[in-house]
Amino acid sequence: MRILALDSSAVSASVAVLEDEKLLGEFFIHTKQTHSQTLMPMVKNVLDCTGTALDTIDLFAVSAGPGSFTGVRIGVSCVKGMAMTQGKPCVGVSTLEAMACSLADLEGTVCAVMDARRQQVYNACFASKDGVLTRLTEDRALAIDDLAEECKGFDQPVYLVGDGAALCAASPAFQSLENIRLPAEPLRFQRGYGVAMAARNALERQEAVDAAELAPVYLRMPQAERELKQRLSKMEETI
Amino acid sequence: MRILALDSSAVSASVAVLEDEKLLGEFFIHTKQTHSQTLMPMVKNVLDCTGTALDTIDLFAVSAGPGSFTGVRIGVSCVKGMAMTQGKPCVGVSTLEAMACSLADLEGTVCAVMDARRQQVYNACFASKDGVLTRLTEDRALAIDDLAEECKGFDQPVYLVGDGAALCAASPAFQSLENIRLPAEPLRFQRGYGVAMAARNALERQEAVDAAELAPVYLRMPQAERELKQRLSKMEETI
Repeated sequence: MRILALDSSAVSASVAVLEDEKLLGEFFIHTKQTHSQTLMPMVKNVLDCTGTALDTIDLFAVSAGPGSFTGVRIGVSCVKGMAMTQGKPCVGVSTLEAMACSLADLEGTVCAVMDARRQQVYNACFASKDGVLTRLTEDRALAIDDLAEECKGFDQPVYLVGDGAALCAASPAFQSLENIRLPAEPLRFQRGYGVAMAARNALERQEAVDAAELAPVYLRMPQAERELKQRLSKMEETI
Repeated sequence: MRILALDSSAVSASVAVLEDEKLLGEFFIHTKQTHSQTLMPMVKNVLDCTGTALDTIDLFAVSAGPGSFTGVRIGVSCVKGMAMTQGKPCVGVSTLEAMACSLADLEGTVCAVMDARRQQVYNACFASKDGVLTRLTEDRALAIDDLAEECKGFDQPVYLVGDGAALCAASPAFQSLENIRLPAEPLRFQRGYGVAMAARNALERQEAVDAAELAPVYLRMPQAERELKQRLSKMEETI
Protein backbone atom coordinates (compact mmCIF):
# COMPACT_ATOMS: atom_id res chain seq x y z
CA MET A 1 0.00 0.00 0.00
CA ARG A 2 1.28 3.41 -1.01
CA ILE A 3 0.39 6.43 1.14
CA LEU A 4 0.99 10.06 0.14
CA ALA A 5 1.04 12.10 3.36
CA LEU A 6 0.98 15.89 3.78
CA ASP A 7 1.41 18.25 6.69
CA SER A 8 1.01 22.03 6.54
CA SER A 9 -0.51 22.57 9.97
CA ALA A 10 2.13 25.01 11.26
CA VAL A 11 5.06 27.04 9.90
CA SER A 12 6.84 23.92 8.61
CA ALA A 13 5.47 21.77 5.79
CA SER A 14 6.21 18.20 4.83
CA VAL A 15 5.30 15.60 2.21
CA ALA A 16 6.11 11.88 2.29
CA VAL A 17 5.47 8.72 0.31
CA LEU A 18 5.33 5.52 2.33
CA GLU A 19 5.20 2.08 0.67
CA ASP A 20 4.05 -0.39 3.33
CA GLU A 21 6.58 0.37 6.08
CA LYS A 22 9.26 1.78 3.80
CA LEU A 23 9.75 5.52 3.50
CA LEU A 24 10.30 6.09 -0.24
CA GLY A 25 10.73 9.83 0.06
CA GLU A 26 10.18 12.78 2.37
CA PHE A 27 10.43 16.52 1.87
CA PHE A 28 10.43 18.95 4.80
CA ILE A 29 10.71 22.72 4.82
CA HIS A 30 10.67 25.12 7.73
CA THR A 31 10.68 28.66 6.44
CA LYS A 32 8.17 31.45 6.11
CA GLN A 33 7.24 30.39 2.58
CA THR A 34 3.48 30.30 1.97
CA HIS A 35 2.09 26.75 2.04
CA SER A 36 -0.35 27.65 -0.73
CA GLN A 37 2.65 28.19 -3.00
CA THR A 38 5.02 25.45 -1.81
CA LEU A 39 2.91 22.43 -0.79
CA MET A 40 1.85 21.20 -4.23
CA PRO A 41 5.32 21.77 -5.76
CA MET A 42 6.70 19.70 -2.85
CA VAL A 43 4.22 16.93 -3.69
CA LYS A 44 5.32 17.03 -7.33
CA ASN A 45 9.02 16.98 -6.33
CA VAL A 46 8.59 13.95 -4.03
CA LEU A 47 6.58 12.03 -6.66
CA ASP A 48 9.05 12.91 -9.44
CA CYS A 49 12.24 12.17 -7.49
CA THR A 50 10.93 8.86 -6.15
CA GLY A 51 9.55 7.88 -9.58
CA THR A 52 6.04 7.50 -8.12
CA ALA A 53 3.05 8.06 -10.39
CA LEU A 54 0.12 9.82 -8.69
CA ASP A 55 -2.29 7.11 -9.83
CA THR A 56 -0.30 4.46 -7.90
CA ILE A 57 -1.15 6.13 -4.56
CA ASP A 58 -3.68 4.05 -2.60
CA LEU A 59 -4.42 6.46 0.23
CA PHE A 60 -4.05 10.22 0.71
CA ALA A 61 -3.33 11.35 4.28
CA VAL A 62 -3.16 14.75 5.92
CA SER A 63 -2.76 16.39 9.33
CA ALA A 64 -6.35 17.59 9.80
CA GLY A 65 -5.70 19.53 13.01
CA PRO A 66 -5.13 20.96 15.46
CA GLY A 67 -2.95 23.65 13.93
CA SER A 68 -3.01 26.94 12.09
CA PHE A 69 -6.51 27.32 10.62
CA THR A 70 -5.22 28.45 7.22
CA GLY A 71 -2.44 25.83 7.18
CA VAL A 72 -4.78 22.97 8.02
CA ARG A 73 -7.27 24.11 5.37
CA ILE A 74 -4.53 24.21 2.71
CA GLY A 75 -3.38 20.66 3.54
CA VAL A 76 -6.92 19.27 3.71
CA SER A 77 -7.86 20.99 0.42
CA CYS A 78 -4.81 19.59 -1.40
CA VAL A 79 -5.60 16.06 -0.23
CA LYS A 80 -9.31 16.43 -1.02
CA GLY A 81 -8.43 17.54 -4.55
CA MET A 82 -6.02 14.68 -5.20
CA ALA A 83 -8.22 12.00 -3.60
CA MET A 84 -11.29 13.21 -5.50
CA THR A 85 -9.63 13.31 -8.92
CA GLN A 86 -7.94 9.94 -8.36
CA GLY A 87 -11.06 8.31 -6.89
CA LYS A 88 -9.08 7.10 -3.88
CA PRO A 89 -9.84 7.22 -0.13
CA CYS A 90 -8.26 9.70 2.23
CA VAL A 91 -7.75 10.07 5.94
CA GLY A 92 -7.31 13.03 8.26
CA VAL A 93 -5.10 12.39 11.28
CA SER A 94 -4.38 14.25 14.50
CA THR A 95 -1.42 16.57 13.95
CA LEU A 96 -0.23 15.78 17.47
CA GLU A 97 -0.42 12.02 16.98
CA ALA A 98 1.38 12.34 13.63
CA MET A 99 4.20 14.24 15.33
CA ALA A 100 4.56 11.58 18.01
CA CYS A 101 4.54 8.76 15.43
CA SER A 102 8.04 9.77 14.29
CA LEU A 103 9.39 9.48 17.83
CA ALA A 104 8.68 5.94 18.99
CA ASP A 105 12.44 5.27 19.33
CA LEU A 106 12.79 7.74 22.19
CA GLU A 107 12.29 6.35 25.70
CA GLY A 108 10.08 8.41 28.02
CA THR A 109 7.11 10.69 27.41
CA VAL A 110 6.50 12.48 24.13
CA CYS A 111 4.66 15.73 24.77
CA ALA A 112 3.49 17.23 21.44
CA VAL A 113 2.72 20.93 21.77
CA MET A 114 1.60 23.51 19.22
CA ASP A 115 1.38 27.20 19.99
CA ALA A 116 -2.33 28.06 20.35
CA ARG A 117 -1.56 31.69 21.40
CA ARG A 118 -2.82 33.37 24.58
CA GLN A 119 -0.49 31.23 26.79
CA GLN A 120 -2.25 28.08 25.62
CA VAL A 121 -1.04 25.09 23.64
CA TYR A 122 -2.69 22.33 21.66
CA ASN A 123 -1.32 19.18 23.25
CA ALA A 124 -1.39 15.40 23.46
CA CYS A 125 1.00 13.18 25.44
CA PHE A 126 2.27 9.71 24.58
CA ALA A 127 4.34 7.11 26.44
CA SER A 128 7.22 5.87 24.28
CA LYS A 129 8.86 2.56 25.13
CA ASP A 130 10.69 -0.09 23.10
CA GLY A 131 9.56 1.46 19.82
CA VAL A 132 5.89 1.47 20.85
CA LEU A 133 3.79 4.60 21.46
CA THR A 134 0.80 4.66 23.82
CA ARG A 135 -1.55 7.63 23.92
CA LEU A 136 -1.84 9.12 27.43
CA THR A 137 -4.20 12.03 26.76
CA GLU A 138 -6.72 13.20 24.18
CA ASP A 139 -5.91 16.13 21.87
CA ARG A 140 -6.82 19.25 23.84
CA ALA A 141 -6.15 22.97 24.22
CA LEU A 142 -4.82 23.85 27.67
CA ALA A 143 -2.80 26.43 29.57
CA ILE A 144 0.99 25.97 29.54
CA ASP A 145 1.04 26.01 33.35
CA ASP A 146 -1.55 23.22 33.55
CA LEU A 147 0.45 21.10 31.12
CA ALA A 148 3.63 21.59 33.18
CA GLU A 149 1.74 20.43 36.26
CA GLU A 150 0.61 17.25 34.44
CA CYS A 151 4.12 16.55 33.17
CA LYS A 152 5.31 16.02 36.75
CA GLY A 153 3.41 12.73 36.76
CA PHE A 154 4.81 11.37 33.48
CA ASP A 155 7.71 8.99 32.85
CA GLN A 156 10.99 10.84 32.50
CA PRO A 157 12.52 12.25 30.33
CA VAL A 158 9.71 14.34 28.78
CA TYR A 159 10.42 15.21 25.13
CA LEU A 160 8.77 18.44 24.02
CA VAL A 161 8.08 18.51 20.28
CA GLY A 162 6.19 20.82 17.94
CA ASP A 163 6.22 24.54 17.35
CA GLY A 164 5.17 25.11 20.97
CA ALA A 165 8.14 23.14 22.36
CA ALA A 166 10.55 26.06 22.72
CA LEU A 167 7.74 28.24 24.09
CA CYS A 168 6.93 25.70 26.81
CA ALA A 169 10.58 24.97 27.62
CA ALA A 170 11.16 28.70 28.20
CA SER A 171 8.13 29.12 30.50
CA PRO A 172 8.78 29.36 34.26
CA ALA A 173 6.43 26.41 34.96
CA PHE A 174 8.47 24.06 32.71
CA GLN A 175 11.82 25.44 33.83
CA SER A 176 11.12 24.22 37.35
CA LEU A 177 10.77 20.65 36.00
CA GLU A 178 13.73 18.34 35.65
CA ASN A 179 14.49 16.22 32.61
CA ILE A 180 12.63 18.24 30.01
CA ARG A 181 14.25 17.70 26.60
CA LEU A 182 14.04 19.36 23.21
CA PRO A 183 14.98 16.77 20.56
CA ALA A 184 17.15 17.69 17.57
CA GLU A 185 15.57 19.61 14.68
CA PRO A 186 14.63 16.62 12.48
CA LEU A 187 12.55 15.15 15.32
CA ARG A 188 11.13 18.42 16.64
CA PHE A 189 8.54 19.23 13.97
CA GLN A 190 5.76 17.48 12.09
CA ARG A 191 6.89 15.26 9.22
CA GLY A 192 5.11 13.54 6.36
CA TYR A 193 6.42 10.20 7.69
CA GLY A 194 4.56 10.67 10.98
CA VAL A 195 1.36 11.57 9.12
CA ALA A 196 1.68 8.38 7.04
CA MET A 197 2.27 6.24 10.14
CA ALA A 198 -0.70 7.84 11.93
CA ALA A 199 -2.75 7.15 8.78
CA ARG A 200 -1.86 3.44 9.04
CA ASN A 201 -3.22 3.47 12.61
CA ALA A 202 -6.35 5.32 11.41
CA LEU A 203 -6.86 2.72 8.66
CA GLU A 204 -6.89 -0.02 11.30
CA ARG A 205 -9.60 1.92 13.11
CA GLN A 206 -11.44 2.10 9.74
CA GLU A 207 -11.30 5.88 9.62
CA ALA A 208 -10.59 6.27 5.89
CA VAL A 209 -13.24 8.40 4.16
CA ASP A 210 -14.22 9.71 0.73
CA ALA A 211 -12.76 13.05 -0.35
CA ALA A 212 -16.11 14.77 0.24
CA GLU A 213 -16.17 13.70 3.89
CA LEU A 214 -12.65 14.83 4.81
CA ALA A 215 -12.81 17.85 7.15
CA PRO A 216 -10.46 19.83 9.38
CA VAL A 217 -10.63 19.17 13.12
CA TYR A 218 -10.38 22.38 15.15
CA LEU A 219 -9.99 22.17 18.90
CA ARG A 220 -10.98 25.82 19.29
CA MET A 221 -13.10 28.13 17.19
CA PRO A 222 -11.15 30.40 14.82
CA GLN A 223 -10.43 33.82 16.33
CA ALA A 224 -12.87 35.57 13.96
CA GLU A 225 -15.72 33.29 15.08
CA ARG A 226 -14.77 33.69 18.77
CA GLU A 227 -14.82 37.47 18.39
CA LEU A 228 -18.13 37.41 16.52
CA LYS A 229 -19.68 35.24 19.24
CA GLN A 230 -18.36 37.65 21.90
CA ARG A 231 -19.78 40.67 20.07
CA LEU A 232 -23.13 38.96 19.57
CA SER A 233 -23.42 38.04 23.25
CA LYS A 234 -22.51 41.63 24.24
CA MET A 235 -25.20 42.94 21.86
CA GLU A 236 -27.73 40.58 23.45
CA GLU A 237 -26.77 41.90 26.89
CA THR A 238 -27.31 45.51 25.78
CA ILE A 239 -30.66 44.82 24.14
CA MET B 1 26.06 30.33 8.57
CA ARG B 2 24.20 28.46 5.84
CA ILE B 3 25.29 24.92 4.97
CA LEU B 4 24.07 22.96 1.93
CA ALA B 5 24.63 19.27 2.70
CA LEU B 6 24.40 16.28 0.34
CA ASP B 7 24.48 12.52 0.77
CA SER B 8 24.42 9.98 -2.04
CA SER B 9 26.70 7.37 -0.50
CA ALA B 10 24.24 4.46 -0.64
CA VAL B 11 20.86 3.64 -2.22
CA SER B 12 19.16 6.57 -0.46
CA ALA B 13 19.97 10.20 -1.22
CA SER B 14 19.40 13.34 0.78
CA VAL B 15 19.89 17.10 0.59
CA ALA B 16 19.51 19.62 3.43
CA VAL B 17 19.96 23.32 4.12
CA LEU B 18 20.94 24.22 7.67
CA GLU B 19 21.02 27.83 8.90
CA ASP B 20 23.06 27.88 12.10
CA GLU B 21 21.26 25.16 14.07
CA LYS B 22 17.96 25.45 12.26
CA LEU B 23 16.99 22.94 9.58
CA LEU B 24 15.44 25.08 6.81
CA GLY B 25 14.73 22.14 4.55
CA GLU B 26 15.52 18.50 3.91
CA PHE B 27 14.76 16.14 1.05
CA PHE B 28 15.25 12.38 1.34
CA ILE B 29 14.58 9.65 -1.19
CA HIS B 30 15.11 5.91 -0.91
CA THR B 31 14.40 4.29 -4.23
CA LYS B 32 16.43 2.78 -7.02
CA GLN B 33 16.55 6.10 -8.90
CA THR B 34 20.01 6.99 -10.21
CA HIS B 35 21.74 9.61 -8.06
CA SER B 36 23.27 11.16 -11.17
CA GLN B 37 19.74 12.01 -12.31
CA THR B 38 18.05 12.89 -9.00
CA LEU B 39 20.66 14.57 -6.76
CA MET B 40 20.95 17.95 -8.51
CA PRO B 41 17.14 18.22 -9.04
CA MET B 42 16.79 17.54 -5.29
CA VAL B 43 19.25 20.38 -4.58
CA LYS B 44 17.24 22.69 -6.82
CA ASN B 45 13.96 21.64 -5.15
CA VAL B 46 15.29 22.27 -1.64
CA LEU B 47 16.74 25.67 -2.58
CA ASP B 48 13.55 26.71 -4.43
CA CYS B 49 11.06 25.54 -1.79
CA THR B 50 13.03 27.12 1.08
CA GLY B 51 13.57 30.33 -0.91
CA THR B 52 17.36 29.96 -0.56
CA ALA B 53 19.59 31.47 -3.25
CA LEU B 54 22.65 29.35 -4.08
CA ASP B 55 24.96 32.32 -3.58
CA THR B 56 23.83 32.66 0.06
CA ILE B 57 25.33 29.25 0.93
CA ASP B 58 28.49 29.65 3.04
CA LEU B 59 29.66 26.04 3.10
CA PHE B 60 29.03 22.99 0.91
CA ALA B 61 29.14 19.63 2.72
CA VAL B 62 29.05 16.04 1.51
CA SER B 63 29.37 12.47 2.77
CA ALA B 64 32.79 11.67 1.35
CA GLY B 65 32.80 7.99 2.33
CA PRO B 66 32.72 5.21 3.14
CA GLY B 67 29.96 4.12 0.80
CA SER B 68 29.19 3.05 -2.74
CA PHE B 69 32.14 4.17 -4.89
CA THR B 70 29.90 5.60 -7.61
CA GLY B 71 27.50 7.18 -5.13
CA VAL B 72 30.27 8.89 -3.17
CA ARG B 73 31.85 10.17 -6.40
CA ILE B 74 28.53 11.67 -7.55
CA GLY B 75 28.01 13.50 -4.25
CA VAL B 76 31.61 14.75 -4.07
CA SER B 77 31.48 15.90 -7.72
CA CYS B 78 28.23 17.84 -7.20
CA VAL B 79 29.67 19.63 -4.17
CA LYS B 80 32.99 20.30 -5.91
CA GLY B 81 31.13 21.87 -8.82
CA MET B 82 28.95 24.10 -6.68
CA ALA B 83 31.75 25.16 -4.29
CA MET B 84 34.09 25.92 -7.20
CA THR B 85 31.61 28.05 -9.16
CA GLN B 86 30.46 29.88 -6.01
CA GLY B 87 34.01 30.35 -4.70
CA LYS B 88 33.01 28.92 -1.31
CA PRO B 89 34.70 26.33 0.93
CA CYS B 90 33.52 22.75 1.21
CA VAL B 91 33.97 19.86 3.59
CA GLY B 92 33.81 16.08 3.23
CA VAL B 93 32.53 14.22 6.27
CA SER B 94 32.48 10.58 7.33
CA THR B 95 29.23 9.00 6.10
CA LEU B 96 29.08 7.00 9.33
CA GLU B 97 29.54 10.03 11.57
CA ALA B 98 26.92 11.94 9.55
CA MET B 99 24.45 9.12 10.10
CA ALA B 100 25.07 9.11 13.85
CA CYS B 101 24.73 12.91 14.05
CA SER B 102 20.96 12.60 13.49
CA LEU B 103 20.63 10.21 16.42
CA ALA B 104 21.96 12.02 19.47
CA ASP B 105 18.51 11.87 21.11
CA LEU B 106 18.64 8.09 21.43
CA GLU B 107 20.17 6.70 24.63
CA GLY B 108 22.67 3.87 24.22
CA THR B 109 25.12 2.97 21.45
CA VAL B 110 24.68 4.02 17.84
CA CYS B 111 26.26 1.45 15.55
CA ALA B 112 26.38 2.81 11.97
CA VAL B 113 26.80 0.04 9.42
CA MET B 114 26.97 0.08 5.64
CA ASP B 115 26.98 -3.06 3.53
CA ALA B 116 30.56 -3.52 2.23
CA ARG B 117 29.70 -6.91 0.61
CA ARG B 118 31.56 -10.19 1.28
CA GLN B 119 30.08 -10.44 4.85
CA GLN B 120 31.82 -7.20 5.79
CA VAL B 121 30.46 -3.83 6.85
CA TYR B 122 31.82 -0.31 7.00
CA ASN B 123 31.26 0.69 10.60
CA ALA B 124 31.78 3.23 13.34
CA CYS B 125 30.23 3.19 16.83
CA PHE B 126 29.15 6.13 18.97
CA ALA B 127 27.93 6.49 22.56
CA SER B 128 24.75 8.57 22.70
CA LYS B 129 23.73 10.14 25.99
CA ASP B 130 21.73 13.26 26.93
CA GLY B 131 21.81 14.56 23.37
CA VAL B 132 25.61 14.22 23.09
CA LEU B 133 27.45 11.78 20.79
CA THR B 134 30.90 10.42 21.58
CA ARG B 135 32.87 8.47 18.99
CA LEU B 136 33.89 5.01 20.26
CA THR B 137 35.70 3.64 17.18
CA GLU B 138 37.32 4.87 13.98
CA ASP B 139 35.64 4.31 10.61
CA ARG B 140 36.68 0.82 9.53
CA ALA B 141 35.75 -2.19 7.39
CA LEU B 142 35.26 -5.34 9.44
CA ALA B 143 33.53 -8.72 9.45
CA ILE B 144 29.93 -8.78 10.73
CA ASP B 145 30.85 -11.45 13.30
CA ASP B 146 33.70 -9.32 14.69
CA LEU B 147 31.37 -6.33 15.04
CA ALA B 148 28.79 -8.44 16.90
CA GLU B 149 31.53 -9.56 19.30
CA GLU B 150 32.48 -5.91 19.97
CA CYS B 151 28.87 -4.90 20.51
CA LYS B 152 28.70 -7.12 23.59
CA GLY B 153 30.88 -4.58 25.40
CA PHE B 154 28.84 -1.49 24.47
CA ASP B 155 26.14 0.35 26.44
CA GLN B 156 22.68 -1.09 25.76
CA PRO B 157 20.52 -0.75 23.72
CA VAL B 158 22.59 -0.88 20.53
CA TYR B 159 20.88 0.97 17.64
CA LEU B 160 21.83 -0.41 14.22
CA VAL B 161 21.52 2.22 11.48
CA GLY B 162 22.52 2.40 7.82
CA ASP B 163 21.94 0.15 4.84
CA GLY B 164 23.81 -2.65 6.62
CA ALA B 165 21.52 -2.53 9.68
CA ALA B 166 18.98 -5.10 8.52
CA LEU B 167 21.82 -7.33 7.20
CA CYS B 168 23.55 -7.31 10.60
CA ALA B 169 20.32 -7.75 12.58
CA ALA B 170 19.52 -10.87 10.54
CA SER B 171 22.98 -12.44 11.02
CA PRO B 172 23.31 -15.29 13.57
CA ALA B 173 26.05 -13.41 15.47
CA PHE B 174 23.77 -10.40 16.10
CA GLN B 175 20.68 -12.51 16.77
CA SER B 176 22.39 -14.01 19.80
CA LEU B 177 22.76 -10.48 21.27
CA GLU B 178 20.07 -8.90 23.40
CA ASN B 179 18.78 -5.37 23.02
CA ILE B 180 19.68 -4.81 19.38
CA ARG B 181 17.31 -2.24 17.89
CA LEU B 182 16.48 -1.05 14.39
CA PRO B 183 15.17 2.54 14.65
CA ALA B 184 12.21 3.73 12.56
CA GLU B 185 12.79 4.52 8.85
CA PRO B 186 13.45 8.29 9.21
CA LEU B 187 16.34 7.58 11.60
CA ARG B 188 17.67 4.48 9.86
CA PHE B 189 19.39 6.03 6.83
CA GLN B 190 21.77 8.88 6.07
CA ARG B 191 20.18 12.33 5.97
CA GLY B 192 21.33 15.73 4.78
CA TYR B 193 20.78 17.06 8.31
CA GLY B 194 23.35 14.65 9.73
CA VAL B 195 25.86 15.62 7.03
CA ALA B 196 25.36 19.30 7.92
CA MET B 197 25.81 18.62 11.64
CA ALA B 198 28.95 16.55 10.99
CA ALA B 199 30.19 19.45 8.81
CA ARG B 200 29.79 21.81 11.76
CA ASN B 201 32.01 19.48 13.82
CA ALA B 202 34.51 19.32 10.93
CA LEU B 203 34.58 23.13 10.74
CA GLU B 204 35.56 23.27 14.41
CA ARG B 205 38.44 20.92 13.59
CA GLN B 206 39.32 23.32 10.72
CA GLU B 207 38.75 20.68 8.08
CA ALA B 208 37.08 22.92 5.46
CA VAL B 209 38.95 22.86 2.14
CA ASP B 210 38.88 24.42 -1.33
CA ALA B 211 36.84 22.63 -3.98
CA ALA B 212 40.03 21.34 -5.64
CA GLU B 213 41.14 19.57 -2.46
CA LEU B 214 37.87 17.77 -1.72
CA ALA B 215 38.28 14.02 -2.27
CA PRO B 216 36.39 10.79 -1.54
CA VAL B 217 37.60 8.68 1.40
CA TYR B 218 37.56 4.98 0.61
CA LEU B 219 38.16 2.47 3.38
CA ARG B 220 38.82 -0.29 0.88
CA MET B 221 40.08 -0.25 -2.69
CA PRO B 222 37.37 -0.45 -5.39
CA GLN B 223 36.69 -4.03 -6.54
CA ALA B 224 38.25 -3.38 -9.97
CA GLU B 225 41.51 -2.23 -8.37
CA ARG B 226 41.51 -5.17 -5.90
CA GLU B 227 41.06 -7.61 -8.80
CA LEU B 228 43.77 -5.92 -10.85
CA LYS B 229 46.19 -6.08 -7.91
CA GLN B 230 45.34 -9.77 -7.42
CA ARG B 231 45.91 -10.53 -11.11
CA LEU B 232 49.20 -8.63 -11.13
CA SER B 233 50.51 -10.47 -8.07
CA LYS B 234 49.51 -13.82 -9.64
CA MET B 235 51.35 -12.85 -12.84
CA GLU B 236 54.44 -11.99 -10.77
CA GLU B 237 54.24 -15.42 -9.10
CA THR B 238 54.10 -17.20 -12.46
CA ILE B 239 56.97 -15.23 -13.95
